[in-house]
Amino acid sequence: MSDTENNNQCDIIIEGGTLLTISENMDVIDNPVIGIKDGKIAFIKHRDIDGGHSYTAKNILSAHGSIIMPGLINTHTHLPMVCFRGLADDLPLMDWLHNHIFPAESKFVTREMVYKGAMLAIAEMILSGTTTFCDAYFYESEVARAAFDSGIRAVVSQGFIDLPASTAPEKIADIAERFISKWQSKSPLIIPALACHSPYACSPETIMSVKAAARRADVLYSIHLSETKEEVAIMREKFGKTPVQHLKDIDVLDDRTLAVHCIWLEDYEMDMLRSLEVKVSHNPESNMKLAAGCAPVPLLIQKGITVGLGTDGSASNNDLDMFGEMGTAAKLHKVMQMDSTVMDAKTVLKMATINGATALGLEDQIGSIEPGKSADIIIVDTEKPHLAPMHSYYSQLVYAASGADVKTSIIGGRVVMHDRELLLVDLPSIMQEVRSIAKLIGAN
Amino acid sequence: MSDTENNNQCDIIIEGGTLLTISENMDVIDNPVIGIKDGKIAFIKHRDIDGGHSYTAKNILSAHGSIIMPGLINTHTHLPMVCFRGLADDLPLMDWLHNHIFPAESKFVTREMVYKGAMLAIAEMILSGTTTFCDAYFYESEVARAAFDSGIRAVVSQGFIDLPASTAPEKIADIAERFISKWQSKSPLIIPALACHSPYACSPETIMSVKAAARRADVLYSIHLSETKEEVAIMREKFGKTPVQHLKDIDVLDDRTLAVHCIWLEDYEMDMLRSLEVKVSHNPESNMKLAAGCAPVPLLIQKGITVGLGTDGSASNNDLDMFGEMGTAAKLHKVMQMDSTVMDAKTVLKMATINGATALGLEDQIGSIEPGKSADIIIVDTEKPHLAPMHSYYSQLVYAASGADVKTSIIGGRVVMHDRELLLVDLPSIMQEVRSIAKLIGAN
Repeated sequence: MSDTENNNQCDIIIEGGTLLTISENMDVIDNPVIGIKDGKIAFIKHRDIDGGHSYTAKNILSAHGSIIMPGLINTHTHLPMVCFRGLADDLPLMDWLHNHIFPAESKFVTREMVYKGAMLAIAEMILSGTTTFCDAYFYESEVARAAFDSGIRAVVSQGFIDLPASTAPEKIADIAERFISKWQSKSPLIIPALACHSPYACSPETIMSVKAAARRADVLYSIHLSETKEEVAIMREKFGKTPVQHLKDIDVLDDRTLAVHCIWLEDYEMDMLRSLEVKVSHNPESNMKLAAGCAPVPLLIQKGITVGLGTDGSASNNDLDMFGEMGTAAKLHKVMQMDSTVMDAKTVLKMATINGATALGLEDQIGSIEPGKSADIIIVDTEKPHLAPMHSYYSQLVYAASGADVKTSIIGGRVVMHDRELLLVDLPSIMQEVRSIAKLIGAN
Repeated sequence: MSDTENNNQCDIIIEGGTLLTISENMDVIDNPVIGIKDGKIAFIKHRDIDGGHSYTAKNILSAHGSIIMPGLINTHTHLPMVCFRGLADDLPLMDWLHNHIFPAESKFVTREMVYKGAMLAIAEMILSGTTTFCDAYFYESEVARAAFDSGIRAVVSQGFIDLPASTAPEKIADIAERFISKWQSKSPLIIPALACHSPYACSPETIMSVKAAARRADVLYSIHLSETKEEVAIMREKFGKTPVQHLKDIDVLDDRTLAVHCIWLEDYEMDMLRSLEVKVSHNPESNMKLAAGCAPVPLLIQKGITVGLGTDGSASNNDLDMFGEMGTAAKLHKVMQMDSTVMDAKTVLKMATINGATALGLEDQIGSIEPGKSADIIIVDTEKPHLAPMHSYYSQLVYAASGADVKTSIIGGRVVMHDRELLLVDLPSIMQEVRSIAKLIGAN
């Protein structure tokens, strides 16, 4: 049997439609045939040019009338907070946090509740085209378990915070190591990581201990950074320097650090992030809703910093739809800079795919559709009135599409959603369970 | 036969779910029975309290697991521009307008093309929960015809612009009168109106002639106003005053004037709009995407000005989803004012319903669900992962719902969409026709 014939025997074939590869050259292929084998993309052919009918597969998916594209990558979530969605909106930030979110969390954090909240959030994400997320929360093993059960790809970060009390460095090392060793070989889809809440809610000792553990295990380390003006003022008051300078001085900034938000940055701090190859997660809807501010993303990108897109938790957004987040990112910076040319649709789509992959250190595996990469693919149904006519694929996806237009989702070569039906999550039962949790937490 | 028995014989009954009335007291009714008769809301009962089973109707709709609410009111559209959606994005405003939109319009404006574009846009609007729109374009009779055929409620404004050439006042009067008399008695759902493009693209004579015709016929008059800084500069240069002052001085500002955008206003101009009872249409996504600016909506509302919500045309948004527009409106002003308490979910939902109705002079007929009002009602399916749990109906609708969650739409007592199927529009054929038009207009 020839090599070609071998290659043409696949697990899944996707045929028809239009493929946006998000490769380096942003290749667009009309009427493609995509072969998926052993979880990876085996080949991409032009159906018209290559003949392309000499393949076999157990599962042949038609993408006629659709766009085939890489699954979206949500670089910042707190999934279990889905249980607080709509609990306390339109409030001053500190009132929201101290009088609503923290009290809710004090009632809420049982392991089973974290699992169920995460599972509902994952259902929402898969149905809206996200195939990878990067999460940080308490009891992160429960988030990892939900990800494992649902078939989604996840960077799961065990979170540390010094509120109400700090954790001793040796205990941090122990918790971190146990978490990482528990998850690092469980599944190629589950990638353990570590997180600190922020420079103002974690002591230098905590921040350094968690980063040391992340370095030992070579995992991603994420931290909220310069989210509010108040944070910068607190850090200046306490340490006599900005949050970025503080983290640099205690040596936690490197190419495996994901800094989340990065709104209130001086120019020299951006250069610092750039030279240390720190990655940034941009969460525009959360930043708007909490009135935190608007990150200088066009400038960060111009400086060569990798910026991924994220939704943040459902208490501050309030949905996890990355299509909506793309539209907001594209439009927000235009009005902020009074320049309609910044953050064009292509830039934003890259931010939500390949640049998100790079931010998480996964650019060799995901973020584009190319032979050898993992098959993390979504099919977007464009037979919808709001997606016609099709002058530009990128514009339609960023400015007009919504998560509800995704009809099929494949993660690591496994179909996890088809025709809007989740194949691995019992949605009605998880919705019912989260509603019961919500009754315990708050009104309604 | 008693009066009560009479009232209980309906055309349509909606039962179950939760009713958000958007009445003066914002009454919320769990498990209601809503009777619809002769296009109007005949009664609203509590199913549990009033017994409520003594009704009959040809059509009984279950709203279990759903929110029942007034249909959304889109106060500013240019529907046929749906044909330009995605044609030219991320460009400087003047490049966009003069090198892309105007040339496209020069190729595009045949009556049949306007009809088909409008019909596709109406399909999108009905599917995303809009039951009334206020449109302005060339060949507005074609938009009116599409609205009439589709069953949607529409304020259709024949538009006037002095580019490339101005129209003589007597010709304006003639065109306006013919348009209004053609449409004013055709259907209670079709409400003729008049529009001028803007103070900078219409001469004072044109503006005054169109307004005079609007006053004679007692119809709504709308005009783009203070959309860009450049417009204010042009008006100061040409007339030595701001656009608002200019319109006041030529006496076109009154309670039947809808001023669209209103971004660059001085405080005294807001007071002027307030004292003249001018209504405002706020189009946040278009204003963001074109980098026009951000209207001072919280201040306008605080001053007592009626502000409705709108999407603007599809070339500058790019969708017509009023749910997305609500989320953007709620979040944009928070970050602009650095105050997370402004534009709370309830305020935004009122802007998209009852205040939109008032902006169009239709508050006696639509905008809330109350006995005697027209039955313009949507049913939103909340059995979706992104709408669970239900801590707050208003938050969920504004921050998490999308147009795709609307499962049923009733306009003037007629079911126009049910279970996501349009009942009066042949969607596949209209999509195909608009795609053919798009091929004539531009690439792809």
